[in-house]
Amino acid sequence: MVDIATRVHNHNWKIDPIVRSLIDTDFYKLLMCQSIFRNKPDTTVEFSLINRTKAVRLADLIDEGELREQLDHVRSLSLSRGESTWLRGNTFYGKRQMFRPDFMEWFENLRLPPYHLEKRDGQYELTFEGKWPEVMLWEIPALAVLMELRSRAVLKGMGKFELQVLYARAMTRVWEKIERLREIDTLKLADFGTRRRHGFLWQDWCVQALQEGLGDKFIGTSNCRIAMKRDIEAIGTNAHELPMVYSALADTDEELAQAPYQVLADWHEEHDGNLRIILPDTYGTEGFLRNAPDWLTTWTGIRIDSGDPVVGAEIAIRWWKDRGEDPTKKLVIFSDGLDVDKIEELHKRFAGRVRVSFGWGTMLTNDFRGLAGDRLNPFSLVCKAVSANGRPTVKLSDNPSKAMGPADEVTRYKRVFGVGEQTAMEVTV
Amino acid sequence: MVDIATRVHNHNWKIDPIVRSLIDTDFYKLLMCQSIFRNKPDTTVEFSLINRTKAVRLADLIDEGELREQLDHVRSLSLSRGESTWLRGNTFYGKRQMFRPDFMEWFENLRLPPYHLEKRDGQYELTFEGKWPEVMLWEIPALAVLMELRSRAVLKGMGKFELQVLYARAMTRVWEKIERLREIDTLKLADFGTRRRHGFLWQDWCVQALQEGLGDKFIGTSNCRIAMKRDIEAIGTNAHELPMVYSALADTDEELAQAPYQVLADWHEEHDGNLRIILPDTYGTEGFLRNAPDWLTTWTGIRIDSGDPVVGAEIAIRWWKDRGEDPTKKLVIFSDGLDVDKIEELHKRFAGRVRVSFGWGTMLTNDFRGLAGDRLNPFSLVCKAVSANGRPTVKLSDNPSKAMGPADEVTRYKRVFGVGEQTAMEVTV
Repeated sequence: MVDIATRVHNHNWKIDPIVRSLIDTDFYKLLMCQSIFRNKPDTTVEFSLINRTKAVRLADLIDEGELREQLDHVRSLSLSRGESTWLRGNTFYGKRQMFRPDFMEWFENLRLPPYHLEKRDGQYELTFEGKWPEVMLWEIPALAVLMELRSRAVLKGMGKFELQVLYARAMTRVWEKIERLREIDTLKLADFGTRRRHGFLWQDWCVQALQEGLGDKFIGTSNCRIAMKRDIEAIGTNAHELPMVYSALADTDEELAQAPYQVLADWHEEHDGNLRIILPDTYGTEGFLRNAPDWLTTWTGIRIDSGDPVVGAEIAIRWWKDRGEDPTKKLVIFSDGLDVDKIEELHKRFAGRVRVSFGWGTMLTNDFRGLAGDRLNPFSLVCKAVSANGRPTVKLSDNPSKAMGPADEVTRYKRVFGVGEQTAMEVTV
Repeated sequence: MVDIATRVHNHNWKIDPIVRSLIDTDFYKLLMCQSIFRNKPDTTVEFSLINRTKAVRLADLIDEGELREQLDHVRSLSLSRGESTWLRGNTFYGKRQMFRPDFMEWFENLRLPPYHLEKRDGQYELTFEGKWPEVMLWEIPALAVLMELRSRAVLKGMGKFELQVLYARAMTRVWEKIERLREIDTLKLADFGTRRRHGFLWQDWCVQALQEGLGDKFIGTSNCRIAMKRDIEAIGTNAHELPMVYSALADTDEELAQAPYQVLADWHEEHDGNLRIILPDTYGTEGFLRNAPDWLTTWTGIRIDSGDPVVGAEIAIRWWKDRGEDPTKKLVIFSDGLDVDKIEELHKRFAGRVRVSFGWGTMLTNDFRGLAGDRLNPFSLVCKAVSANGRPTVKLSDNPSKAMGPADEVTRYKRVFGVGEQTAMEVTV
């Protein structure tokens, strides 16, 4: 077993680079990448880092030279033979050859495109521009690099035993969560913590702890590298970037209104079963479901990623009932800001009424709250598509605190998608 | 840094024998051994294991085959060249060549004598008979073997992560104690935890944590092997076995009354400075000091190892004052059943009035209370000289719960040493 404290104490990026592999990323990025590679290969996009927690002044904490070193290291990575074999030969969601030969060939030759980095107001402006299938693969490594450099900056200078005790406390905390979670009958839970992780070794530890502690209740990890290394399921479907970019590309309001459904129509062609998961909140869950075509009701489930999760799930259940579907056969995946209390509460409320599953992120892989004052507390860092073919992207979300895009475009999108008053909820992670 | 949890999980006595070296023992055993080698080399003694905590049924917990393997392994050990060099060349208590060439030569050729092992009523009867200088060296390894086999028996079958979290909790607990202790100005504290340790690796971890956490307030360890390995001071002076055996050898009541002073007279010849520490409680502290010869008042200090430590230290202070000594120049070493609360309390009460020092044992190296139900809770195991040249030994102590010896002899000793009513205190460790 890796002695994380010692590795962190002696850490040296040449031994422990933050991102070790092109598949040290979320599985859904690869699924989406293949879909984009097929459907929108020439779309030009810009992704940008956004730190929603302004109080964490990343540019003051993290040395620019170290950041560039890590980002340059990511650019030097290419798919290893073993990784390629795994992607080509492994079974994902019960299906062989999930990744098609033409995509794999392209992926094997891929290096990530350049980045653009500047400091402004104590924050880093980190952007990536280029072809969508290439640029989109920066999201997870960029977040992981910044998250872990922040951890390392805080831990730097701590004594060896101080560090070991810090990790001892963090381990105890994770384990106590697991001890509570394993009391939940019929729990299904996956690790979704790559992007906000404290560090790679830590995420890997958390995954192994879940394996031992939860047994079959732990269904897998979003992280491909760890899934491969630990021989467990890679988990994930699709994300907001698809409707955001499709919508930005729409030429008219009519096309815009249809764009989120076009995303899922393309997905419908490519995937079936448990990969047919609706992510309805990009421009408001309620309107999305109200206007959804009937074929979407046959999809396996829905992922609730913003707003009040109880409200979101109740809307979905009502929608399925209204459209003649049996909700008990449907899957609801909760993935927004989860911790044990909320998982218990949501499971209690929805288990039996629908099939419930959880994608647990930041509070699994980065709950160091209070372990170094507040200096290791989680914060809200994202890396999003901000434009496509020169047009700004927009996200409304079910929580206006997570909305993004230029004000006039936000207004237009709200009108097109019929989004009215929304309740703002604090975004901590 | 050693990953203890993994080592314990994969443990195999051939990789991790419990006792790794003849100097994996307390420093005072070696000092006493040399003294006995010089003064009483031909005395025959019997040492015996005594489990004061009957509820812990060692023979039910620990496999006899494993116990014999470990004891046989101890008998296979001899002093390594590096250990011999260290003992011969190192400075102990500021003095070079503490161990004389004739003693070192004898020690280099030593193998521990046979043991006798039987099961009775869920306990092991483990005894050692032979020449005092040889047999007395069994005490610490025998205790360490039984303590660690008990730990291993409880930990057997735990999962890797369950174990890691158990150690994480134990580490956090030790560290939180250290964080409290380092707030005490002028603290002087040594590790006295070898005999009751959870395990060798764990004691070694605790010592390193004390080094980092307490800095100069940590003055050393009683464990020679760890002192050598970690390049720190080896700490210790003398123990009850000296007056117990000297007393058993006395032919008359008059000789008996003088025996404890004869021990210190012999010690006086051999040692000076911080090694001149009175251990007064074998047959009652009060009487011992009352009848002590004047030259003893010039000794550096006293070790309080049973009874109410406040009472013991106050008696010593009064005694020094009565005999015209300045208590502020004297050293009081507390070493009985300490934990942080008591250390804080004793330091607060006595710092400044005397020089205070602490020998912290079981609650440093074996505080796993509650971490596996009560199955890892500390218990009170000792290994004592029970006879010398065929005569039973007696200990009265300042706490009658720690007394030992045949009833008629106890009565005789009480009369000879003028010990009246004593207050029994629970012995938990």
